[in-house]
Amino acid sequence: MRLRNNPKAYDIMEENADFVILDPESHKGKYHQLFKENKPVFVEIGMGKGDFIYQNALKHPENNYIGIEKFPSVLAAAINKINKQEKLDNLKLMHYDALELLNVFEKGEIDHLFLNFSDPWPKKRHAKRRLTSPDFLNVYRQLLKKDGLIEFKTDNRGLFEYSLQSVTENHYHLDYVSLDLHNSPEAEDNIMTEYERKFSVNGPIYKMILSDTMEKNNG
Amino acid sequence: MRLRNNPKAYDIMEENADFVILDPESHKGKYHQLFKENKPVFVEIGMGKGDFIYQNALKHPENNYIGIEKFPSVLAAAINKINKQEKLDNLKLMHYDALELLNVFEKGEIDHLFLNFSDPWPKKRHAKRRLTSPDFLNVYRQLLKKDGLIEFKTDNRGLFEYSLQSVTENHYHLDYVSLDLHNSPEAEDNIMTEYERKFSVNGPIYKMILSDTMEKNNG
Ligand SMILES: C[S@@+](CC[C@H](N)C(=O)[O-])C[C@H]1O[C@@H](n2cnc3c(N)ncnc32)[C@H](O)[C@@H]1O
Ligand SMILES: C[S@@+](CC[C@H](N)C(=O)[O-])C[C@H]1O[C@@H](n2cnc3c(N)ncnc32)[C@H](O)[C@@H]1O
Repeated sequence: MRLRNNPKAYDIMEENADFVILDPESHKGKYHQLFKENKPVFVEIGMGKGDFIYQNALKHPENNYIGIEKFPSVLAAAINKINKQEKLDNLKLMHYDALELLNVFEKGEIDHLFLNFSDPWPKKRHAKRRLTSPDFLNVYRQLLKKDGLIEFKTDNRGLFEYSLQSVTENHYHLDYVSLDLHNSPEAEDNIMTEYERKFSVNGPIYKMILSDTMEKNNG
Repeated sequence: MRLRNNPKAYDIMEENADFVILDPESHKGKYHQLFKENKPVFVEIGMGKGDFIYQNALKHPENNYIGIEKFPSVLAAAINKINKQEKLDNLKLMHYDALELLNVFEKGEIDHLFLNFSDPWPKKRHAKRRLTSPDFLNVYRQLLKKDGLIEFKTDNRGLFEYSLQSVTENHYHLDYVSLDLHNSPEAEDNIMTEYERKFSVNGPIYKMILSDTMEKNNG
């Protein structure tokens, strides 16, 4: 964890240890024990200020939710926002880098992954940093249990075009594609993120749902 | 061939036998003999009034072009349009249904396929009629030689969403995807079709280029 560079954010995390996971590695293989009940584990990577995962946790008490954010200051902002709302016993947050998640989750421990408005990294030489690049997709594959799904949405055309190619090359199956989510039948059930609310005025929101077509021997 | 139901269109085809192929089945396996020189064979399926394939043939004398159109009246309109322009010895047209093309081409006889603004058939029960449905994709796979490509563009969001799923499920590789061709770097080299000129004012033009990832023993 990279925390020391922002002592205030770290304090906020410590003060909210009831729903912020301070020692992610120590729960590997037993994340369900952190929650009141053993339910499917839904994880959002790059949760930002957390509106999406909070609303999901509220709407779906039948699942447990874990929000992951790389930057302490962003996580701290999410904590402060959540603290102004009703506490949910099926929602936890953690500060971590998606690429390292195999240190904190057992293979097949996650049922469902969300990626929302991930940083586009438009320059070709930064392609490896995109959350849908092959190294990340390989991590997700291992984290997800058999029949697990990934939901990805973005307003960024270049990132979505790249991702269509990347996911299919890496043997994910396109279970769903929308090139204009807000004008699709699925808009009704859509829970918006902060970025989505801000950027959907400029153009379409793209969405894909993926499953893994590779044989697994975990989960 | 379904011609008799439109005698006038049939007459126009007969009168232009220098560039209209009247007996497609008889050239199976030897299409190159129809052309002055043996060059790669580029085929457009559903060519409409032919602007796209004519401009391609004009711009690329290094290839031979065959435009295919299911409806005689549409083909007749294309013939009349082409007759007002310079004759090209690398362009032929034929009246045929894409689904039956294995009757007229040998396996692996085609280098490159174009599908432009294919009829969307938006109703689910008509999905089989879409030119990117599995039965058609299976025909294209056989027609195309090894390393052959398919280029598909459309303004129809539903058709493009469907096609992304259909092509990847049917083991085609997405070599290129643009969700807004006219605002992509590739716009510069883009040759517009009649439909493209008409409908691109309403929204983005989508494009994909596909190669076949399945092993072949033809071509
Ligand atoms: C553009 S923001 C979108 C935030 C939010 N999902 C939304 O849609 O409003 C992307 C977020 O992902 C986080 N992020 C980027 N790379 C990450 C990684 N490797 N692991 C975890 N989070 C990451 C960033 O810190 C940032 O908060
Ligand atoms: C919507 S129009 C587009 C015409 C042209 N490609 C353009 O972009 O302007 C589709 C064309 O495909 C033709 N077509 C539809 N199904 C076909 C099939 N199975 N084989 C050959 N042509 C077909 C139709 O007759 C029609 O002319």
